[in-house]
Amino acid sequence: MVKVGIVGGSGYTGVQLVSLLLGHPETEIQWVTSRKFEGQLICETFGALRSMTDLRFVRFTPDLLSGVDIVFTAVPHGQAMKIVYQIARYGKRVIDLSADYRFKDITIYEQAYQKHQTPELAEKAVYGLPELFFSKIRKAEIVGNPGCYPTSAILAAAPVITEGLHAPGMPLIVDSKSGVSGAGREPTLATHFCEVDEGLKPYKVLSHRHQPEIASILKSSSEDVGEVYFVPHLSPMNRGIVSTIYLPLKQRMEEKALLALYESSYADKPFVRVLPYGTFPSTHHVRGSNYCDIGLALAPGGKLVVAMSAIDNLIKGASGQAIQNMNIMMGLDEALGLCIPPLFP
Amino acid sequence: MVKVGIVGGSGYTGVQLVSLLLGHPETEIQWVTSRKFEGQLICETFGALRSMTDLRFVRFTPDLLSGVDIVFTAVPHGQAMKIVYQIARYGKRVIDLSADYRFKDITIYEQAYQKHQTPELAEKAVYGLPELFFSKIRKAEIVGNPGCYPTSAILAAAPVITEGLHAPGMPLIVDSKSGVSGAGREPTLATHFCEVDEGLKPYKVLSHRHQPEIASILKSSSEDVGEVYFVPHLSPMNRGIVSTIYLPLKQRMEEKALLALYESSYADKPFVRVLPYGTFPSTHHVRGSNYCDIGLALAPGGKLVVAMSAIDNLIKGASGQAIQNMNIMMGLDEALGLCIPPLFP
Amino acid sequence: MVKVGIVGGSGYTGVQLVSLLLGHPETEIQWVTSRKFEGQLICETFGALRSMTDLRFVRFTPDLLSGVDIVFTAVPHGQAMKIVYQIARYGKRVIDLSADYRFKDITIYEQAYQKHQTPELAEKAVYGLPELFFSKIRKAEIVGNPGCYPTSAILAAAPVITEGLHAPGMPLIVDSKSGVSGAGREPTLATHFCEVDEGLKPYKVLSHRHQPEIASILKSSSEDVGEVYFVPHLSPMNRGIVSTIYLPLKQRMEEKALLALYESSYADKPFVRVLPYGTFPSTHHVRGSNYCDIGLALAPGGKLVVAMSAIDNLIKGASGQAIQNMNIMMGLDEALGLCIPPLFP
Amino acid sequence: MVKVGIVGGSGYTGVQLVSLLLGHPETEIQWVTSRKFEGQLICETFGALRSMTDLRFVRFTPDLLSGVDIVFTAVPHGQAMKIVYQIARYGKRVIDLSADYRFKDITIYEQAYQKHQTPELAEKAVYGLPELFFSKIRKAEIVGNPGCYPTSAILAAAPVITEGLHAPGMPLIVDSKSGVSGAGREPTLATHFCEVDEGLKPYKVLSHRHQPEIASILKSSSEDVGEVYFVPHLSPMNRGIVSTIYLPLKQRMEEKALLALYESSYADKPFVRVLPYGTFPSTHHVRGSNYCDIGLALAPGGKLVVAMSAIDNLIKGASGQAIQNMNIMMGLDEALGLCIPPLFP
Repeated sequence: MVKVGIVGGSGYTGVQLVSLLLGHPETEIQWVTSRKFEGQLICETFGALRSMTDLRFVRFTPDLLSGVDIVFTAVPHGQAMKIVYQIARYGKRVIDLSADYRFKDITIYEQAYQKHQTPELAEKAVYGLPELFFSKIRKAEIVGNPGCYPTSAILAAAPVITEGLHAPGMPLIVDSKSGVSGAGREPTLATHFCEVDEGLKPYKVLSHRHQPEIASILKSSSEDVGEVYFVPHLSPMNRGIVSTIYLPLKQRMEEKALLALYESSYADKPFVRVLPYGTFPSTHHVRGSNYCDIGLALAPGGKLVVAMSAIDNLIKGASGQAIQNMNIMMGLDEALGLCIPPLFP
Repeated sequence: MVKVGIVGGSGYTGVQLVSLLLGHPETEIQWVTSRKFEGQLICETFGALRSMTDLRFVRFTPDLLSGVDIVFTAVPHGQAMKIVYQIARYGKRVIDLSADYRFKDITIYEQAYQKHQTPELAEKAVYGLPELFFSKIRKAEIVGNPGCYPTSAILAAAPVITEGLHAPGMPLIVDSKSGVSGAGREPTLATHFCEVDEGLKPYKVLSHRHQPEIASILKSSSEDVGEVYFVPHLSPMNRGIVSTIYLPLKQRMEEKALLALYESSYADKPFVRVLPYGTFPSTHHVRGSNYCDIGLALAPGGKLVVAMSAIDNLIKGASGQAIQNMNIMMGLDEALGLCIPPLFP
Repeated sequence: MVKVGIVGGSGYTGVQLVSLLLGHPETEIQWVTSRKFEGQLICETFGALRSMTDLRFVRFTPDLLSGVDIVFTAVPHGQAMKIVYQIARYGKRVIDLSADYRFKDITIYEQAYQKHQTPELAEKAVYGLPELFFSKIRKAEIVGNPGCYPTSAILAAAPVITEGLHAPGMPLIVDSKSGVSGAGREPTLATHFCEVDEGLKPYKVLSHRHQPEIASILKSSSEDVGEVYFVPHLSPMNRGIVSTIYLPLKQRMEEKALLALYESSYADKPFVRVLPYGTFPSTHHVRGSNYCDIGLALAPGGKLVVAMSAIDNLIKGASGQAIQNMNIMMGLDEALGLCIPPLFP
Repeated sequence: MVKVGIVGGSGYTGVQLVSLLLGHPETEIQWVTSRKFEGQLICETFGALRSMTDLRFVRFTPDLLSGVDIVFTAVPHGQAMKIVYQIARYGKRVIDLSADYRFKDITIYEQAYQKHQTPELAEKAVYGLPELFFSKIRKAEIVGNPGCYPTSAILAAAPVITEGLHAPGMPLIVDSKSGVSGAGREPTLATHFCEVDEGLKPYKVLSHRHQPEIASILKSSSEDVGEVYFVPHLSPMNRGIVSTIYLPLKQRMEEKALLALYESSYADKPFVRVLPYGTFPSTHHVRGSNYCDIGLALAPGGKLVVAMSAIDNLIKGASGQAIQNMNIMMGLDEALGLCIPPLFP
C-alpha cells in the first residue's frame, strides 16, 4: 500500500484526487489538507463523498510528511513552490499539480507567472506527461503535472512534431474549448451560472499562461515548430476540453500514413485512444475517465493536419494524470485504479 | 465468476449495465444482444467504451442461455415478457428492467400497460427494491427491477408509511423532477436538444405509468395511505431525479424523532444516505453512483413531512439497482462493484 | 413620454428593466443608478446593450427626482425602504421591486425580513399584481412589485381560491422550480456554474421568504385556505419558474367547469394564457416574454386540482410586471412595450 | 404595409421569421405554409406564440402569390429552387434561406450540394449579406440569404481581406462553435438532448458545406486568400455561433490600425458591433438579436490577426438577416423591426 498525502484538497482537482484514490486498490490516503476547511469532514464540504470517507481536512505541517510515501500538491502556483520545497527537503517525492514545476527554463516561467523561489528544484523536476516522458517520471523526485490545455494540445500534436513532419518555421494553431471546472471552485462573475450558461466565448486570446507551456514542450521536440498560437474558449459545460490543432506539414501526407503514425505512437499507451479516420472526439466520450481521444483530418492536398483531442480536464488534465504519474513513480501498473469507464450520457 | 447475459444493450440502461459490469470484480459479460446493432462492436455504438470491451452485439436466441448464470433484460415492456418467459422456461434467473414484472396485481399492470401474457410468472416475481425486499430477492427467480421514479419515491416515503405514521386516508403527493436520459435514446421531438435545454415542464400530469407502481407498493405497506398523486417534470440535464414527497402525519412529530426513524430504517443499507436535518439532496451529489440521498423537513406544527430524495436514474433508478439485485441473488456482497464515487462536479 | 428613473440598475432585474424600457414607445430613461458601477457606461457593464444606449450609471441623489415622473427601485430589501421613503417624500410615484412594500401586515414582513422603517408607507402601498389589483394599482403612489415565486403561485391558484372552491382548512402545496437568475448576479458558491449545471435540488424547504407573501395574498382572498407549504427547487437553466400547485377542492369539479373558470378569470388579461386542458406550461414557451402560462389537471374523483404555471422570472416575475404596473399607473395601455414574443428555442 | 408570405414555417428559422415579423411595424404576414402541419394553428405547433397570432399553416400553391409583395422561402435546399422558380416566374421578389441561391458559380454549388435546376436564376441572385452587398440587394429579385457560419466568418474576416492585407497564398483558418438550433428541428440521434448536453465536439471537419460558401465570397474579394480551412464544432447550447478566424498578414500591423480598420469598415452598419481591443465576443451578448459582435487580437510580432465574431445563428445567421434584406429591398430602414435587445442572461 502506498501512503499518500494531499496538500490542498478543497478545490475541484483536490476532490477529484480524493475520489480517484478512494477507488485505487494500492493506495491509502493518510491526510488531506485545507486551510479554508480545516477540521471539517471532507464529506461535509463535498456532499458527493458522504459515506465514502470519514477523513477531515487538516492544516499542513511538515510533521505530516513522515507518514506518507508520496505527496500530491494541489494548491495555486506560487504557494505550491513553498510547500514542494519543504517536501523535497524532507526527502519525499511529490507530484505538483500547479504550474510551478512545469518549466525547465525558469525565465519562461517567470515571464508567465512570477519570481521562482526554488529554481534549482524546478530544473530537476520532470514534466509529468507519461506518454512522452515515462522513464524520466519513473525516477523523478518532483513531477510537474501538466496543465489541462497543454495535455490535450501536446498529445494531439506530438506524433507529427516528434516525427519531424512539421513545416519548418510555420505557425501551429491551438484552438481549445473548455468546460468551466478548469477555472476552479472560487466563485467569480466569469463563472457565475447565468454568465456562462448558453454562452460560448473566447478568453485570454493569445495571452493564456498555458501557451508558453505548450510551446516549450513542443519546441523541445523539434526545431521546426514556429510560433504557437493558442486561443482558449469557455463552453457551457462542467467538464471536458476539445483542442483543435492545425499542423502545417513539410510534405504531403496520406490518410493511412497519418493514422498509422498516431496508432504506432500510442500503441502501448493505455489512455490514448486514436479514433478511426473520419471519427472525431467528443468530451462526452471521455468524461469521468482518464482517456485522451484523438481524431484526425487531412486537408485536401495533404499538407495540413487537423488533430483534435478530447480529455476530461479534471482527470487526464489534472488528477487522473497525477495518479498515473504516481503509479509510474511507485513502480505500479501505470493504469492502476484509473480504468474507469467514461460516464455516458 | 458470475456469467451474465444482457438482452437489449443498445439503450442508455443497456450501456450503463455494460459499463458497470465491466468494473464488477465477480462478473463476466458473456453476450449483449441488440436487434438494431447486431454484429456491431459495442464500442462503435458507444464511443465512450472504446478500448474497454471488444464485445459485439448479437441477436438473442435461447441457445445463448446455456452459457450464463443470470440474465438482465433491458428491452421495452411488452417485449420483455416474451423474452423473460423463454429465460424462465430455460431455468435461468432473470432481472427484468422493464415494467412487466413489477406488479403482483395483474389488473393494475394491464390498466396501465397492456395485456399480460405470463401472469403466472408475474405473480411469482419479486419487486427488486433491495432496501425493502432483500430476503425475497435473494431467492427470486424473476426480479422486476423498479422504475426510476418509484425507486426515488418509495425510498423517501417508506419509513413514514411502514411505521404507520401516515394520516389515515390522506393523500400523498409525489412531485418529481427528472433529467432526460430516463426517456431513452430514441430521438423524439420531446427530447430534441432545443426543445429541452433551458426548458422545465411538467408532463403526463397525474397520468404517468409510474403512479400505479408507487401507489401499489406504498399501499401494500400500510392501509392508511390515501390517494397517491404523482406529477413528473422534465429538467434540462442528462441524469438524475429529485422527488419531493408531501406526507401528512397522523400525529405531531419532532425533528429528532423523524431523523432517527430514517436513520434506523436505513442503518445497514449501503446505498441510502440520510442527510443531516436541514441538508437537502441534489442530483449533483449522486450522479454516476448507486446512492439514494434523502433529506427531510418538518412543517411548523409537525404534522407534515417533506421527504426529498435524489438518485441517478440510470444507476440506482435502473442498472445499478439491477446489479445490486444480482449481487443479492448470487450471494455476493450487495455492494460489490457498485461503490463508485459520484462524479462531482 | 413618461420620464423614468431606475435606482439600482446593475443586477439582472435592473438590466432587464433597461432592456425593456429601451423598447417601450412611451418612456424615456432619464437615469440609472449604481453605487458599484458609478460612472461606467451601462453597455460596458452589460455588453449585450452595446450600441443600444450611451447612458452611464450615476449615484442616487434626491436631486435626480425632479427630472422624472416615476421611479423603479431595484435594490435589495432594507435598502429599498430608505430610497422609497425619499421618493415618496419628494412626491414621486414609485414601483419597488424589493420585498419592502409587499406586505400590508408589517408583523409578517418583520418576521420574514427585518424591522421596517416606514410602516406607514407600507400600509398605503399596493401589491402590484395587475391581474388581481388593477384598479388599486392605477391610483397607487407606491407599488410593491410581487416576488417571482409569488407571481407564479398566486396567478395559478387565484381562480380556485377567489371562487371559494378550496376545501376549508386544507393545506395548499406550492412546489416550484426556478432557473438561477432569480438568485441575482452576485457570485456565490451556490450559483457557481459547476455547482448548478446538471444539478437539481430543493433549497430553503418550507423556509423561503416568499412563503408568507404567497400565503398572505391567498388567505386575504379566502378564509378557507389552510396552511401554505412552499418548496422551491433550483434547476440548471438561466430563466424561468414552473410552479406546481396542489389545490384540494371543497366539492367535485368537472374538467370543463375548471377550464371555464380559469378562462373567464383571465379573459381580459393580456399576459395570462390559459392552456387547453391536457396541455402543460413550459418555461421554454414564456422565456423573454411577460406571459404567465397556466395548465390544469384534475385528479380522478375531481377533488384535487393541479394548477401549473410558467413565467420568465426576470420579466413577468420582476421587470416586465413592474413596467405593466407603470403602464397602469400612468394611464397607458397595460401591455404597451411588453408584447414581446418569447424567444424559442 | 409590406405583405409577406413564408414558405416553410415549421422549422426554427420559420418560427423565428414569424416571431420577428409579428413585431415588425411595416409588414403583415399573409400566409405561412407547411406541408407537415397544414391546417394547424401556428401557435399549436409553437406554444410560445400562443395568443400572438391566429394564423394557420396552409399548403403552398402559386395562387397564394397574388396576395403578397415578397416571399421568404425557408425550406431545405433542393426543394427551395422549385418554389423560388415559381415565385420568380410569377414576378414576385423572394428571399431564399436555403443554400440554393448563394453561389454565382453553379459548379461549386453542384459539387457541394446537388444538380441545380435553375442555374440562370442562381446567376442573377444576390448574396444577401447587407454589410457587403447593400446596393445589389436593394435591386435584387432573388436574394440568397447567407448561411449562419458564413455570416459569422465573412463579417469577421472581410475588413482584412477586402483591404488587401492577407498574406498572399497563405491559408485562412475558420474554427467555429455553434449551438444546436442550427441543425434544425428534425429529431436525430446527433441532436438528442443526452447526446449533446455536456458534450463538445468537432463534426464535418474540413468537409462542411459552408466551406465553399465562405471561400467563394472571400476569394471574390481578394486574390491573396489561399486555402480556406473550416472546422465546425457543436456546443451544448440552443443558439449562437462563435467563429475564431486566423488571418495571416502581408505586413506587420499595429493594434490601433487594426481596430480603426474594423471600426471604419462597419461605421454605418447598424448590426455589426466592433468591440474595444481586448474585449471578446460572446454568444451571450447577441442572443435573441440581429447583432454580430467582433473582437480582435493581434499576435506578438503583428503578423497574424485573430478575428472573432458572435452571432445568433437563427437571427443574424438566418431570419433576422432575411428581414434586414427585405427592409433593404423594400426601401425601408435597414434596421426596421430588428432593434431588439439581446436577451441577457
